[in-house]
Order: sequence, then structure tokens, then C-alpha cells
Amino acid sequence: MDSIIDPRALFTLNYGVYIVSTEYQGRKNGQIINALMQLTADPICMAACLHRDNFTTELVEKSGRFTVSVLEESVPLQFIGQFGFRCGRDFDKFSACAFETGEDGLPFVTEHALACMELEVISVQEIFTHKLFTARVLSAKVLKEGVPLTYANYHFIKKGKSPANAPTAVFNKIK
Amino acid sequence: MDSIIDPRALFTLNYGVYIVSTEYQGRKNGQIINALMQLTADPICMAACLHRDNFTTELVEKSGRFTVSVLEESVPLQFIGQFGFRCGRDFDKFSACAFETGEDGLPFVTEHALACMELEVISVQEIFTHKLFTARVLSAKVLKEGVPLTYANYHFIKKGKSPANAPTAVFNKIK
Repeated sequence: MDSIIDPRALFTLNYGVYIVSTEYQGRKNGQIINALMQLTADPICMAACLHRDNFTTELVEKSGRFTVSVLEESVPLQFIGQFGFRCGRDFDKFSACAFETGEDGLPFVTEHALACMELEVISVQEIFTHKLFTARVLSAKVLKEGVPLTYANYHFIKKGKSPANAPTAVFNKIK
Repeated sequence: MDSIIDPRALFTLNYGVYIVSTEYQGRKNGQIINALMQLTADPICMAACLHRDNFTTELVEKSGRFTVSVLEESVPLQFIGQFGFRCGRDFDKFSACAFETGEDGLPFVTEHALACMELEVISVQEIFTHKLFTARVLSAKVLKEGVPLTYANYHFIKKGKSPANAPTAVFNKIK
């Protein structure tokens, strides 16, 4: 194979679209993520990748816990924008969406979400611009039946963009 | 949130379906994987999760390199079965499929594949039953236009199963 990276090859990979949320010392924040996957079935563990500069990343490292909400296909672009394109350092993202708070104080977005889960961080690894978290699932529940949003649907049907800090930011250059 | 894990919540996560292949000292092998995601855009890195007992895992650890082929939606179940439900220790999986060999000797499956890429391992981390590889993409190309197979399509439309060693093996119990 020639040593050329055709970005269109990368766009054939499938992802969902999720909100990762956490809380540390009373400060809640959350962000959109596509880089999330299950690693093991017993115990159930996941990997999630966040940009090292994001506020959510900082809070997840400090709290050692986070939640995931699985977004539904019908979620409005504006809702995604609130979590994906604004920085939580100077804006309370939870001021304008429906969420619940777990027993341990972690928020999880319930609006436009099919399912949610709560995780405890196992490890953090720096990979160039990002941090790769592995985490054990503590609880998981279905919020409603529906079709999950895929990253391809978000980009090619909803015409959504990727923020510069997304693992797949190069998506924007092609469309 | 109650400390209960409802497996149906996990099934709302989205994945593609891929073949990971490698070669070490003349021995080729490959396997089906769904746990693959992009981590960074500059440089382009991925994470892939394989069961610690799989033959492909052993060869990837030794060679430090692997390829990924992105399967198309129309791939027959039988083709997936050849890579996903047989062990390469006593069967040459490449004897019955179309593949090409890169300059460095790595095989990559071209049959029923939309795109393929070649990666170099950065790190390996043990997560209970599995090994989480991070790897840098060396090359990536589109093989043909088409719709990528999703894990949901494989399970709920094609009625495919997960091998016991898959990260998402619990899928089988629900359908």
C-alpha cells in the first residue's frame, strides 16, 4: 500500500454520537464525543477519547467518573451545538437541557437521549493531542426506544461540523 | 442512577465491522473486530481492542503492525464467519479470500471491503480479558464506493452472532 493517507478511507468508520458529562466540586460540564467503544464484556469496560485541552477532560481526570448519554437520530443540530461548540468554562451547558443527577452527584443528559451509563475511570493515556480514558461501567439504563444517531448521519444528513478538537476534525475539510 | 447494568443500553452504541490482519514471520492471520475508533487527527491514530487469547492479537503484538479493512453492508454472513468464527492457528483464513500484500508484507483483505489502512502499534494495554492497542495510521485508501456495514445491521438485520471473545459478546443473550 502506498504511504498516502486518503481521509475518505477514514470516513467509512462507524461511530455513534454521545454526550460525556461529569462533575467535580460542584462544577458540571459535558461535551459531544464520537470516540467511544466497549472494550470488554466481563466486567463491562469502555474506552473514550477526549481532547487534552477540553474542560470536560480536565473535570473527568479530577473526578475519576463520567456519564455517557446516547443521542437519538432526531436530536436537533442546535442541541448538539450547545454541547459541542461552546466551552463550559464560561457557560453552564446544563442550564438549558433536561438532565438527572445520580446518587454520587454526576449529571447525565436525558434530553434526546436513548440510554445513559455511569463509568469509573480505570486509566488515562496521552495520545498526542488527546487523552484516552478506559473506564468500567457502573450502571446503564435505557431511557426510551428509538434510533441512535450515527456520526455519518450527523455529518452527511444533518450537515453537522466537527469542532477543531474532535478526533475526526479532518471530516470538515472534505464535505 | 441505580447500580444496575441493562445490556440493552449498551446496544445503542454504534460500531462498524472490520477485519484486522497482520503477518509475523510468514504467518498471516486476521479477525473480525468492531471495537475500532479514531483517536487523533494529527497525527492520525486509532485504538483497536482484541481478545488477549486470539491468535491475531499474538501476531499483532509480535509484528507491531496491522491492517484494517472496512466491510461493506452487502458482505455475506459466511464471509464474516470465516474470519470471525474460525481460529487461524489451524486454518489459513487468507486461503479463501481476495487480499493484497503491502510493501512490508502485511496482508489486507480487499474482498467486500470499502477501504483499508495500515497501522503501526504505539502501545498495548491489558484491560481484563482484552488488549487495547493504540496505533498510528501509516496509509489509508478507498477501495470502492459503498455503504459500510454497521454492527447493528450485522446483528439485527443479518442476524449475525458475536463470538465469545468479542467485547460485546453479551449481545447474543438478548436477541
